[in-house]
Amino acid sequence: MGQISPNYSITLRLEIQNKPGMLGKITSAIGYLTGDIGAIDLVSAHPNRLIRDMTIHIRDSRHGDQIIENLKTLEGVKVLNVSDQTFLLHLGGKIEVVCKSPLKTRDDLSRAYTPGVARICEAIVKNPEDVYRLTIKKNCVAIVTDGSAVLGLGNIGPRAALPVMEGKAMLFKEFGGINAFPICLDTQDPGDIIRTVQIISTVFGGINLEDISSPRCFEIEERLQESLDIPVFHDDQHGTAVVVLAALLNALKVVQKSLKEIKVVVNGTGAAGIACSKMLLSAGVKNIIGCDRQGIIYSGRKENMNPQKLWLAEQTNPDRLTGGLYDALGGADLFLGLSGPGTMKAEWIKRMARDPIIFALANPVPEVNPEEAGPYARIMATGRSDYSNQINNVLCFPGLFRGALDCRAKKITSEMKTAAAYAIASIVQEDQLSEDYIIPSIFNKTVGEKVADAVLKAAVASGVSQRK
Amino acid sequence: MGQISPNYSITLRLEIQNKPGMLGKITSAIGYLTGDIGAIDLVSAHPNRLIRDMTIHIRDSRHGDQIIENLKTLEGVKVLNVSDQTFLLHLGGKIEVVCKSPLKTRDDLSRAYTPGVARICEAIVKNPEDVYRLTIKKNCVAIVTDGSAVLGLGNIGPRAALPVMEGKAMLFKEFGGINAFPICLDTQDPGDIIRTVQIISTVFGGINLEDISSPRCFEIEERLQESLDIPVFHDDQHGTAVVVLAALLNALKVVQKSLKEIKVVVNGTGAAGIACSKMLLSAGVKNIIGCDRQGIIYSGRKENMNPQKLWLAEQTNPDRLTGGLYDALGGADLFLGLSGPGTMKAEWIKRMARDPIIFALANPVPEVNPEEAGPYARIMATGRSDYSNQINNVLCFPGLFRGALDCRAKKITSEMKTAAAYAIASIVQEDQLSEDYIIPSIFNKTVGEKVADAVLKAAVASGVSQRK
Repeated sequence: MGQISPNYSITLRLEIQNKPGMLGKITSAIGYLTGDIGAIDLVSAHPNRLIRDMTIHIRDSRHGDQIIENLKTLEGVKVLNVSDQTFLLHLGGKIEVVCKSPLKTRDDLSRAYTPGVARICEAIVKNPEDVYRLTIKKNCVAIVTDGSAVLGLGNIGPRAALPVMEGKAMLFKEFGGINAFPICLDTQDPGDIIRTVQIISTVFGGINLEDISSPRCFEIEERLQESLDIPVFHDDQHGTAVVVLAALLNALKVVQKSLKEIKVVVNGTGAAGIACSKMLLSAGVKNIIGCDRQGIIYSGRKENMNPQKLWLAEQTNPDRLTGGLYDALGGADLFLGLSGPGTMKAEWIKRMARDPIIFALANPVPEVNPEEAGPYARIMATGRSDYSNQINNVLCFPGLFRGALDCRAKKITSEMKTAAAYAIASIVQEDQLSEDYIIPSIFNKTVGEKVADAVLKAAVASGVSQRK
Repeated sequence: MGQISPNYSITLRLEIQNKPGMLGKITSAIGYLTGDIGAIDLVSAHPNRLIRDMTIHIRDSRHGDQIIENLKTLEGVKVLNVSDQTFLLHLGGKIEVVCKSPLKTRDDLSRAYTPGVARICEAIVKNPEDVYRLTIKKNCVAIVTDGSAVLGLGNIGPRAALPVMEGKAMLFKEFGGINAFPICLDTQDPGDIIRTVQIISTVFGGINLEDISSPRCFEIEERLQESLDIPVFHDDQHGTAVVVLAALLNALKVVQKSLKEIKVVVNGTGAAGIACSKMLLSAGVKNIIGCDRQGIIYSGRKENMNPQKLWLAEQTNPDRLTGGLYDALGGADLFLGLSGPGTMKAEWIKRMARDPIIFALANPVPEVNPEEAGPYARIMATGRSDYSNQINNVLCFPGLFRGALDCRAKKITSEMKTAAAYAIASIVQEDQLSEDYIIPSIFNKTVGEKVADAVLKAAVASGVSQRK
């Protein structure tokens, strides 16, 4: 059963007999079925009846139907119309392309289009770098997907992935001031994907790969970055890794441990699991144990391996542990879940070291329920907004691209990602730090600026800035 | 030497001694060199001096330099700064991607992004057609170019073409309410172009091909339209043809001739020349003579032919004329120039039939100068905004796509193009018609709506509407 949340709201248009006590009857009927009433608007008033719009947060469509049925039994109440707020928001899409300057007169037209634009074209012919100054390439990112691993929905293809990419474009604009445009590819062949992105890259100052399934995502990102002189960034990998490291840096301050002494269990060896392991290693963690559905990854394991797991087997698990997740957890300081719902048992936390840290990032249903883990874990973080410590990529990618675009970085280096993680962590000041506050809110306006600033400096320091 | 026009404006920031008569001295100095003064703003006033911004329309950068040098000789005047309005307008690009709804609260986020967006994805999985209802595909066009034939600049490549495509996106928005996004392809191979557009087509409700050189443009358009169920439209061909037909319909009313009796000379056999010939034939014109640089196209000509010219040789020139443009013009009613500057001599118009019609569309320098053609031609039209009768594609494509998107047309049929031409022509009412007014202004707000309406009806009638 889902939670009640504004992501599922219906607006009912009701015709109500105009006499005292009616609104109380209606709100009681809704409350009785645990519908959560939001806005109530008066649409029009008539001598005998009122028309009202009521927005109600509900669990799911069945819950909505029950509430509507219940309202229909009330005397003097008629349900005229039912609309779903989330669907209404999506009608015709969530983003639009607009002009930055008016186009109302012949003078406007002669500057923005012919004949004036020809001088701009000629300037770019003369100095190709001017495309970064005189066109949208300066501040434009492609959000590229093939729809093969969308949210928790899996391989739903490029059409059904488009609403997610539009939402991502909104985040780029709102949190990074960046123009981002969705590119949903009607192919899942890595060669086709790489070739297509190369061919369309002219317009963009950066490429954000999104929701492309593992292990294809690794090859696609690597080969694209090799061939392009603009940043290519697979957010599901590196965005997650950056924010995980940021949260971990602060969590370790709370429990007074250091990166190099902790034991980390990474459950899930998809794109995010591999990227987080790499990032934690490069940040100084020495002891990581990776687990997949079959159990611990170790050097010498034969079944269910792939190049990424082979790499993991070589680079992690120094003690060559074998067995299952249960075995891996003995003495661990951090459980990092990047797998599926309910794959971890709350009692197993008892096997971990003192002050256990649990990052259960499966979304929307975490690896272990925060309420159940509560008694055992010292610090708990999830990907959800309705618990404290939300680990959300939006803390990273808008600022990171902002910084990279501003200095024309030709790629995103590991120094830039690490700088982003430290910048995010730094926003929670030492005297604010607590078990329930290791990571800033996504609505904290300083996050994007601080990340951009740190990333830009790291880009310059690591020699990938191309701005003169 | 160029004309003075707002497409080339400089803004000078001047420090001027604060005493009577100074502004007069300055404006005289500018006027003496035929600079055209626009806005004059006071930036700041001080006891002894004023800071003013003066915008001056000029011919070219040399003209600007002369004016600046002349101002520098004036006592009490200092030139602090010079900026070029067209370049200023282009800094960072001319379009941006924005959110249609705010993203300020967790509730906003939970509807526009996770977790709410998952329900939208699932709806599209269940009913793929919903992508036209719940995403930007409903109202989004790709402006696709390979930069091979940009304006009069030729093959300048995809980077330098981007400012033109951004300008086109502005026109789509301003005149059609359509979200258009530039796709500049880093390839000029027809197979690569076709494959790339197919792969990225998911996001778009239509494809506008732009500035792709002939004859590749024909194959690209045809093969793309065969493989996609959204409209594919090469504006340089069909946009031009539609507006030419519209202008011709009204010109013929003025000279009281009919389509089927006139003789038309089409000079230029590129994309626009071929498309206009096809459109005129399908509208009822019987006698067309095509000319290229080598002269008249006729059945049996061997040199400098290609599949399009072969088609032209078969379908036109019923009397099998041979020779040059001069020979072709004998007794012609319409000269349609889609070639290059100065390819037609004004005196040759004397060879044409009574009330000659001249459409000299080479841009910015027409096939024949309107001032020189004036004494001979009854009706004269060009592609330029500074003469009457401007034949401009923007009269067609925004409304045409608007109509096609609104009914989810799977392609643009010849009926839809003809309907667009008649709709454009109809806006000039019979009692307004004259030699100098055969085509509406591009700023006439009714054009887009009338074209959209006519195109939608024609789409339904020709069975390509997919809207239920």
